[in-house]
Amino acid sequence: MSGTPATEQWANVMKRSAFYLSDGTGITAETLGHSMLSQFGDIEFVQITLPFVQSDEQTREAVARINKAAAEDGAKPVVFSTLVNTDHRAILHSCDALILDLFGAFLRPLEDELGVRSNHKINQSHAIRDAESYRIRINAVHFALDNDDGARTRHYDQADIILIGVSRSGKTPTCLYLALQFGLFTANYPLTEDDFDDLRLPKALVEHKHKLFGLTIDADRLSAIRSERKAGSKYASPRQCDMELRALEAMYNKHNIPYLDATELSIEEISTRVLAMKGLQRRLQ
Amino acid sequence: MSGTPATEQWANVMKRSAFYLSDGTGITAETLGHSMLSQFGDIEFVQITLPFVQSDEQTREAVARINKAAAEDGAKPVVFSTLVNTDHRAILHSCDALILDLFGAFLRPLEDELGVRSNHKINQSHAIRDAESYRIRINAVHFALDNDDGARTRHYDQADIILIGVSRSGKTPTCLYLALQFGLFTANYPLTEDDFDDLRLPKALVEHKHKLFGLTIDADRLSAIRSERKAGSKYASPRQCDMELRALEAMYNKHNIPYLDATELSIEEISTRVLAMKGLQRRLQ
Repeated sequence: MSGTPATEQWANVMKRSAFYLSDGTGITAETLGHSMLSQFGDIEFVQITLPFVQSDEQTREAVARINKAAAEDGAKPVVFSTLVNTDHRAILHSCDALILDLFGAFLRPLEDELGVRSNHKINQSHAIRDAESYRIRINAVHFALDNDDGARTRHYDQADIILIGVSRSGKTPTCLYLALQFGLFTANYPLTEDDFDDLRLPKALVEHKHKLFGLTIDADRLSAIRSERKAGSKYASPRQCDMELRALEAMYNKHNIPYLDATELSIEEISTRVLAMKGLQRRLQ
Repeated sequence: MSGTPATEQWANVMKRSAFYLSDGTGITAETLGHSMLSQFGDIEFVQITLPFVQSDEQTREAVARINKAAAEDGAKPVVFSTLVNTDHRAILHSCDALILDLFGAFLRPLEDELGVRSNHKINQSHAIRDAESYRIRINAVHFALDNDDGARTRHYDQADIILIGVSRSGKTPTCLYLALQFGLFTANYPLTEDDFDDLRLPKALVEHKHKLFGLTIDADRLSAIRSERKAGSKYASPRQCDMELRALEAMYNKHNIPYLDATELSIEEISTRVLAMKGLQRRLQ
């Protein structure tokens, strides 16, 4: 055999296994991993999360699984690890992979700067820090549900923010994200054709104008999203979507309501931008 | 002046500023930062996120802000940075802080292993990867809302999982988290006193038994959570909570329904454990 067939070589280069290894949920490792790997758009990563690795035995099982992937792929897997325990990290470093060891890289400089040793306790990060945070979060989620889609407006005095926009422009997922991640009390109110006749703000919103934040979206995108729900309807037609969105933006401008075009943004981006633009303080860290 | 007053010294040691710096949402930096800082339980961190830092000018503003904190605190702030741009990172490194530079630490080894240069594009990680992911996510969130709290049961054939448990045991936030983060179709169904008489599964659940997952919680904790909603009620009494939870667990055991005690767990932990215990594949990476 004098060479590697082109297809096999191609497969080796363009496809990799990526592992997220953690003594907890794996969310930290995943978040960083997604962020780093998104920088390599041409490579396809097969991603596997191995959470709750909390013993020597479980670490060895993880190593075996990573080594198996290395053998099958014919290329080293990339491992993002947030293992904290020193023994487990030593076991991990025996495996046939590129290991990006977050605690290994950053814990020592942090300890040196802070002048204290860390407690090296596993699974700290997503543990309930206190009952108070849990309470805030649960209450925020239930507030978002109770005040979704204009269902009720009488609790708007308790809201931190009221998102407005047309149907299916991303209000509900954004409200839920703001509630779950930041503990904010969020309401949302749908603007419909009836509201656009004279561009007046609906009565329920007038006295809470300072809490309003608008979302808008590209008409074709909106039409595609609405078509999933009601294909072929007037509601989903590009013409109707375009009409609603023009009126909507005129309304935002008329009443000086800050707003954002959500077309190219993820829920995370919309949420953090809303937070920044409204100057809102989160209730959860 | 021959020394530092004890209180000032104490303040220097026990309180620090922590910055999360990003060209995007800041979520990656925050997630890692929370995880690392949770290892230093005795220090109080004042945490500030500086998202969407995307120009030289904005980077210099961030540096000024960090240096100001350093001067005020009399101690170096800790900076978790996910800046990708090489120029911006160079500006950042001029500041008076401990800089934990995620791309600086990991991008080069990753490039070397993968044999390609990364694109060094800013703000990649939370961008919408494709319209398909966005669609899955929105649909999952709306499914969770439509199938919350036993409101409807006729779509259970489309559900990936059906969470069950007593009122206020964390079903709703867990379902929403599973929908938002993993794109799973989640329903939840509340079990009440009426269901406990003969420990039979409610009719709506019987044919979907393989999709059921139970939550339970400590009775005192449940009583405290319910008291927020209806203080002094029978519903919130420790006796009632205890009675419901005993019956609930008997029901789980009788029908071999996998379940989890959520008392000491965050929503993230409950969600990732449910995923692992049910062997569910996420629909979003």
